[in-house]
Amino acid sequence: MEILLSAAAAKALSPQLAGIDNITTVLFQDDGTLTRNGETVTRDEIAPKATWLSLDVLLSKRVFDFVELLMALPSLEWLQSSAAGFDHPLFAELAKKGIRLTNSDAQAVAIAEYIMGAVLTEFQKVEERRKHQQNKEWQSAYFREIAGTTWMIVGIGNIGNETAKRAKAFGAHIIGVKRNGESPEADETIRPAQMKARLGEADIVVFTSPLNAETHHMGNADYFAAMKPGTVFVNVGRGGLVDEDALLAALDKGTPALALLDVFETEPLPTTSPLWSHENVRVTPHASPKSDGTPKRIAALFLENLTRFADGKALKNEVNASDILAGR
Amino acid sequence: MEILLSAAAAKALSPQLAGIDNITTVLFQDDGTLTRNGETVTRDEIAPKATWLSLDVLLSKRVFDFVELLMALPSLEWLQSSAAGFDHPLFAELAKKGIRLTNSDAQAVAIAEYIMGAVLTEFQKVEERRKHQQNKEWQSAYFREIAGTTWMIVGIGNIGNETAKRAKAFGAHIIGVKRNGESPEADETIRPAQMKARLGEADIVVFTSPLNAETHHMGNADYFAAMKPGTVFVNVGRGGLVDEDALLAALDKGTPALALLDVFETEPLPTTSPLWSHENVRVTPHASPKSDGTPKRIAALFLENLTRFADGKALKNEVNASDILAGR
Repeated sequence: MEILLSAAAAKALSPQLAGIDNITTVLFQDDGTLTRNGETVTRDEIAPKATWLSLDVLLSKRVFDFVELLMALPSLEWLQSSAAGFDHPLFAELAKKGIRLTNSDAQAVAIAEYIMGAVLTEFQKVEERRKHQQNKEWQSAYFREIAGTTWMIVGIGNIGNETAKRAKAFGAHIIGVKRNGESPEADETIRPAQMKARLGEADIVVFTSPLNAETHHMGNADYFAAMKPGTVFVNVGRGGLVDEDALLAALDKGTPALALLDVFETEPLPTTSPLWSHENVRVTPHASPKSDGTPKRIAALFLENLTRFADGKALKNEVNASDILAGR
Repeated sequence: MEILLSAAAAKALSPQLAGIDNITTVLFQDDGTLTRNGETVTRDEIAPKATWLSLDVLLSKRVFDFVELLMALPSLEWLQSSAAGFDHPLFAELAKKGIRLTNSDAQAVAIAEYIMGAVLTEFQKVEERRKHQQNKEWQSAYFREIAGTTWMIVGIGNIGNETAKRAKAFGAHIIGVKRNGESPEADETIRPAQMKARLGEADIVVFTSPLNAETHHMGNADYFAAMKPGTVFVNVGRGGLVDEDALLAALDKGTPALALLDVFETEPLPTTSPLWSHENVRVTPHASPKSDGTPKRIAALFLENLTRFADGKALKNEVNASDILAGR
């Protein structure tokens, strides 16, 4: 069986791939060309059944070339993603063609660590600390504790539950917001309709929702106005969850007090965006999943699914095509 | 009964103190003068039985004037500290005079948050992130996760256990080092004699020990040489636990890779110390207990002990005078 991998992903997996019978790997090189057994091949010459959208491709501009290639491959039966969400229209196109899609929960640990780090950095005024050190000043202010704070985690799933687990160990109270079912880690789970009435209780509000018609611009002027002073807003879900103009206006009114943003309506964030230089905004470049642990966990998930696929067994994390087509 | 409090502490506690019968408060003003019921008094005119070394005094240079005052008060029977340690020689002097001493565990939560924040800041290269934002650069490196790391927490007590609880929620493995007994939060507890042989397993080494003859300069050249590359060293215990010259030489050899220091052999850290400007050292000014939550928890502890003292009941956290005199 032929599979399609980025050159970097194939290199990282080479010991494990050598242990699976009858696998031939087509490499997607950094410059977009394709190679097989060291020789350049055209897309007409290859027939991969399975592929992995590895993190090195997903987090680069090459992602568009890669997905465009997938669209042109009639042999393709299954794609393993390295992300949780399939909201990009290209995934709907793949689903329409009958290609099976599996998502990833391997980045949840990294994103949870990112969130805890981003909040602690601000609560402990790390930038001021470093300036005092540079000036050799023996000086500090009282810092804000996570202990005793209330967190509202919106769209609580793998990422939200990993975050809740950590924040609870700090003595925080966690309100999870979820359409159906209960969060195993939140202290209480509420429905989206109840969210606005409870928003004033939250010291930290975290968006981890998928982007769809219901969640688009959920963070609007009314939403931010319902927050209490001092609230820290974190978005690691999707940029489209937030009306960025409304957020900027709300920051100037003081609620939220601070926005820690890893995702944006347009990515990369255009240099013309006022978010870059707003004093109460922290911008990171969709970096929350980019840890040393994420690639290892995703690789393990891909390898497990590859073995299952080769054996004709059920795949882990397979997403329902009708959900993707309906934008859910 | 007369009690002695800093003006700031008395102000913060005034509602609660009003609820305790027959308490007269002598105020230790910011300029070192004493007042009672709004009038200046001399130290000969007062006879406080109880006092609280509140955080505002403990963390300022006024602490020396305050303790000198205590030494001159024959009426004094009990001192509530805001710190865990009684290693300063002045406490031995107070113990010799028969003054009862109670310590505090209220800062443990703050110090644990400080440690987690300090480690995450470095693992996630927060300073680089902020520079990229200032330059409007959509750029980031893969960050290091706490998940899967091994922590060695030396002198694991209240502070160490609060830290262990949080690091474990991140998926870390915790080795606690303790003279006697088992840590309730560590995955395993070892004895000081076993420490050096296990040091090479640790990604993060945290000193939370009290300072005494056994622990003085525990962090020496041999100790740091036993660490593995990449190890992050944290000291929130006492400056005297570390030979600072040996640490500087060890940092230049690469183990530890980074030292996050909140305590120093001389405090405030002299501006002539090379620690201030070493690129792999983070200096904070004994700030790890200085959170918004610590003063509230210490105030609650002092008030509870004050009621117990007034009622002739056993005090919480009373430290054995013979331990202080023996430097244990």
